[in-house]
Amino acid sequence: MAVGASVEAVVEAGGSHIPPLMAALEQRLAALAAGHGDALARHGGETIAAGGKRLRPLAVFVVAGPTAPAGGPSLLRAAAAVELVHSATLVHDDVLDGADLRRGRPTVVAAAGRRMATATGDLLFSRAFAELAANGRPDEVRVLSGASTALARGELLQRADVFASDVAVERYILRCELKTARLFEAACRLGALESRGPARGQVAELGGFGRRIGLAFQLLDDVLDVSGPAQRTGKRRGADLLDGTVTLPLILARERDPALADLDLRSVATPAQAEAVCDSIAASGALEEARRRAVELVVEAKDDIPAALPAAQRSALRLIADGVVERYS
Amino acid sequence: MAVGASVEAVVEAGGSHIPPLMAALEQRLAALAAGHGDALARHGGETIAAGGKRLRPLAVFVVAGPTAPAGGPSLLRAAAAVELVHSATLVHDDVLDGADLRRGRPTVVAAAGRRMATATGDLLFSRAFAELAANGRPDEVRVLSGASTALARGELLQRADVFASDVAVERYILRCELKTARLFEAACRLGALESRGPARGQVAELGGFGRRIGLAFQLLDDVLDVSGPAQRTGKRRGADLLDGTVTLPLILARERDPALADLDLRSVATPAQAEAVCDSIAASGALEEARRRAVELVVEAKDDIPAALPAAQRSALRLIADGVVERYS
Repeated sequence: MAVGASVEAVVEAGGSHIPPLMAALEQRLAALAAGHGDALARHGGETIAAGGKRLRPLAVFVVAGPTAPAGGPSLLRAAAAVELVHSATLVHDDVLDGADLRRGRPTVVAAAGRRMATATGDLLFSRAFAELAANGRPDEVRVLSGASTALARGELLQRADVFASDVAVERYILRCELKTARLFEAACRLGALESRGPARGQVAELGGFGRRIGLAFQLLDDVLDVSGPAQRTGKRRGADLLDGTVTLPLILARERDPALADLDLRSVATPAQAEAVCDSIAASGALEEARRRAVELVVEAKDDIPAALPAAQRSALRLIADGVVERYS
Repeated sequence: MAVGASVEAVVEAGGSHIPPLMAALEQRLAALAAGHGDALARHGGETIAAGGKRLRPLAVFVVAGPTAPAGGPSLLRAAAAVELVHSATLVHDDVLDGADLRRGRPTVVAAAGRRMATATGDLLFSRAFAELAANGRPDEVRVLSGASTALARGELLQRADVFASDVAVERYILRCELKTARLFEAACRLGALESRGPARGQVAELGGFGRRIGLAFQLLDDVLDVSGPAQRTGKRRGADLLDGTVTLPLILARERDPALADLDLRSVATPAQAEAVCDSIAASGALEEARRRAVELVVEAKDDIPAALPAAQRSALRLIADGVVERYS
């Protein structure tokens, strides 16, 4: 994955302090998984261990900057807490989607059932706050609880709008903010709060950077659901359509194609029908427009990187922003 | 419900500061429910508004004592946070049990589906930490996140032991500690941390008091599932048996009745079969033994009330402890 490559690019750009931090994060997450005293939290442990891109912890570390004490426990806890919240939402999402595979491994719900998976998600949420609380920084807990509240509100918003024919772009963007961007924003804010360097004075600015790349990330994820290819996403094209989730490509395509404007999403019942709708959306030019908006957000994010930061840190942040787009290009 | 009556008894025992606090709590919970900016968190709001006994916030207030500033925002936030965590677990429990009614109202899962209900539970969890984080007290966040982690671990433990024939009393007690007692303990600890009176120096002791009454509460709840009557619990006797949840009455009865010792819980498939097993458990004398252990815990809890507290506060705490037993007598 391009994001994997971009971690290395970040390191090359002057982030030689990053690899030991990422390694320490893995150790910390593994310890958290093992530290429940018995085999009960096995599923939570597996979810954490199964990895993923660790994009949010990477953002925490890069924002904190090279002057953060390497492997300092509070910085690590902040990064681990963000990843735990992310993992918790994935576990609950898989319960609700009845998903069998995640990151190429069986999901908790597939391995252990809905009840175990719901409790595992709750455990990961709770561990996230326990982890961050150990830092003794109420400002950090506020940042994470705000993001975690937003995540749940985003899910509620998505469900409220399911199969709706009149979702406005603004409402879609709000949902993406809540579901995705706020946790990226939180990652960057936590990095700034933990920084011993100039990032420390740039909490809001760096939060805005995170928010924009998070938004771009979600927009591109939604484009990918329509464009495929399936081998990239691990699921067939049009999964969102089958769920009744209205995303930007469809919203934009409806403005361009009267047949799509009249489409009742509830009539899209089979994967083949969903793929046909994907083709219509693609034919309307909506995917290019959605991608263009995402790239614009990334450009804005890069423009917003505070000038007060050292050059190496600024270029590492730019690479993180580019990594979001590269993942989908 | 007897617990409702015991609130009044607590007030009479010298807790004249309690009613305005309980009223302020309701206002705060209602504001939290309404404060999501739109109708999306409706279900979370309904869950909170549907009320319940508010036993945990009551414990927070009584432990904090009359010298806590009445309606002080930080004390209220602590009490609200505990109730929000409790509500979150109820919502998730209802999703997993597929329960239709809770406190006489349709559950979130019945009204809005599993997806909405799971997100609503996540929202309530997140709001709990957001609420408590506003106090700026890392020690308080640690107490709540520890309890919330324990809750999820308790649920995992329960699922790991489902239909098991060899659950030891110690393991059952551990599960009750995690699932129930730790949140009561957290309520009492938070009350002590918020206290401006002598309770402030008795955090561990008052936590122990909470833990014991929480444990007694769960033991008696499990007795009630076997003893009925159904009109009291709102569900048929033996619901735990049908779920495969092994509780103290069955564990004790198995030591007394060889037929029960040999019983494969998976063979208990109908409500009528479950009621027959309940009758066997009752006939073994296990219910009296389980009740006796619960009452013993309550006696120990009362003995543990610190002598340093004012007499009126001590007697209010004794009434809370008695309220747990009265609810089931």
